[in-house]
Amino acid sequence: MTIRMDLGADSYDIVLERGVLMRAGALLDLDRRVLVVTDDGVPAAYAAAVAAGCAAPTVCTIPQGEASKRLATLETLLTAMLDAGFTRGDCVCAVGGGMVGDLAGFAAACYMRGIDFYNVPTTLLAQVDSSIGGKTAVDFGGVKNIVGAFWQPKKVLIDPDTLQTLSRRQTAAGMAEALKSGLIADAALYDLFVQGRAQENIERVIAASLAVKKSVVESDEREQGRRKILNFGHTIGHGIESVTGLMHGECVALGMLPMCADALRPQLAAVLEGLGLPTCVQADPEAVYAALLHDKKMGAGALTAVYVDTPGSCILKSVSPAALRAGIELVVKA
Amino acid sequence: MTIRMDLGADSYDIVLERGVLMRAGALLDLDRRVLVVTDDGVPAAYAAAVAAGCAAPTVCTIPQGEASKRLATLETLLTAMLDAGFTRGDCVCAVGGGMVGDLAGFAAACYMRGIDFYNVPTTLLAQVDSSIGGKTAVDFGGVKNIVGAFWQPKKVLIDPDTLQTLSRRQTAAGMAEALKSGLIADAALYDLFVQGRAQENIERVIAASLAVKKSVVESDEREQGRRKILNFGHTIGHGIESVTGLMHGECVALGMLPMCADALRPQLAAVLEGLGLPTCVQADPEAVYAALLHDKKMGAGALTAVYVDTPGSCILKSVSPAALRAGIELVVKA
Repeated sequence: MTIRMDLGADSYDIVLERGVLMRAGALLDLDRRVLVVTDDGVPAAYAAAVAAGCAAPTVCTIPQGEASKRLATLETLLTAMLDAGFTRGDCVCAVGGGMVGDLAGFAAACYMRGIDFYNVPTTLLAQVDSSIGGKTAVDFGGVKNIVGAFWQPKKVLIDPDTLQTLSRRQTAAGMAEALKSGLIADAALYDLFVQGRAQENIERVIAASLAVKKSVVESDEREQGRRKILNFGHTIGHGIESVTGLMHGECVALGMLPMCADALRPQLAAVLEGLGLPTCVQADPEAVYAALLHDKKMGAGALTAVYVDTPGSCILKSVSPAALRAGIELVVKA
Repeated sequence: MTIRMDLGADSYDIVLERGVLMRAGALLDLDRRVLVVTDDGVPAAYAAAVAAGCAAPTVCTIPQGEASKRLATLETLLTAMLDAGFTRGDCVCAVGGGMVGDLAGFAAACYMRGIDFYNVPTTLLAQVDSSIGGKTAVDFGGVKNIVGAFWQPKKVLIDPDTLQTLSRRQTAAGMAEALKSGLIADAALYDLFVQGRAQENIERVIAASLAVKKSVVESDEREQGRRKILNFGHTIGHGIESVTGLMHGECVALGMLPMCADALRPQLAAVLEGLGLPTCVQADPEAVYAALLHDKKMGAGALTAVYVDTPGSCILKSVSPAALRAGIELVVKA
């Protein structure tokens, strides 16, 4: 299926289809210089499949992990493009998870003030969330995603076959973001999780998550307002991510628990456990709180967080520092 | 006078007025955190005047010169914003020449994926050209402006009084860009230069240059086509700039000579001499050619350059490597 992201001049298609990775050469305009960016945790065959469709590929394989998402790695990509003589008419194609997409997307956004970008996400987390919407960034000064650009891809290819090479833990982390989409905007998607039928309906889960993201991003591309709801679970989640070694999706799972209604929490916790996601982590709640204050989602003084009362809908609500501390302590135990 | 740059949602006003620097607090929204960026070649009183109008200013004074226009200095600015707790609602204000504006503008473009940017250009070159149009960038890998963003300012304040503190050489360098505007699009402006009356009509020169830039940028914000005419003189100019210690405007002056009609060249050379600009430079033509090939204005294989036959209009024309080499040798002598 093809999902059209309608963003005026920045509109693009998302192609969701088994085996589409192998058709990259036919579906993307790769008859030019192409920087194929991947990491060493992604099966090399995936980037090779894309490179095989390129007229002039340069493959950059960066080390796996969030530590690669920084300006020094960006410089590596920019240097590779310069060395290969990239012009404004050339392009960048990410093949990997969210880190690869965010970093490669930012390289495309700032090389010569912006060249074409394609994204071929190969993790569930990237397929349901980070590969679309145009947020690119690197971490800087200990703060996640603080330096970047809104830069929409020209096309996104989502191949569910690539999920077969994910570890159980990576799959679970991706499920957390899909579950988030259900909680904030799609009760039927959430029900699929409650029934324990998400894994067996993975393409439906991806499509439903994309539909939520499409609707939200189309209404607020630059996150001036409504798009903030996609940050459900991310306020406390990012704080936990800063001080623990957990994966992004795992932290979002933990971060959602304090931000839903008391009556909903036991059910959500059961869903998370069923997916193999944590519902509690051992860390210093004070350190999580400090990291959160440093996080970019904070406005001056006040903190607005996304809150789910009834699955399928959400509200933005002001949270006091005391309530936030209490929320952290629900899921972070020293 | 106020000139409106019409770019849809990215529209903004350019206020051209003697003494307007002192009214920055009234004309800009500075009731928030403001990163005031200047360099140590700009009178400190200018940045201080802007800072005096800010609720919470952080003044960053970087070393003067093109060497500051790089990622390391960008990191300095980003760190200053992080340390001061800048959020999406805060802003950056450049007070200085083109280097300061390009660098500060890029910092604003990528901090938290883009925050508000104001520009208060204090050199003639920045006032007639670089402060408007939204091109921000740093140099990287030996290539000028290769990493950056299109990021329009929210307002530009142009105070001709600041020109009094410029050296004669800085003024001449700025005149070169104004002369460029006349040559490509405004015969009356060019005539002012031929008559030797530009200096005494400096406000008219600035206003006319802004009018040219406004018209061109409004028709092609992202330099997909017509905006390329603003690069008149810049192809060979950038090559010369890469291998000599000359100022940007001086290099543009040199770069324009080979790109105009033979019949026009003696008059243009006389105008340049009258302004105190070079018409010839001692350097290795081969090195200039090599630097030019490395320059971002090159498409794959072919070189399209802007050419002036009759002052006030220009054409884009394909130039062979041999013609380019001959052009360089007109103004660069070993």
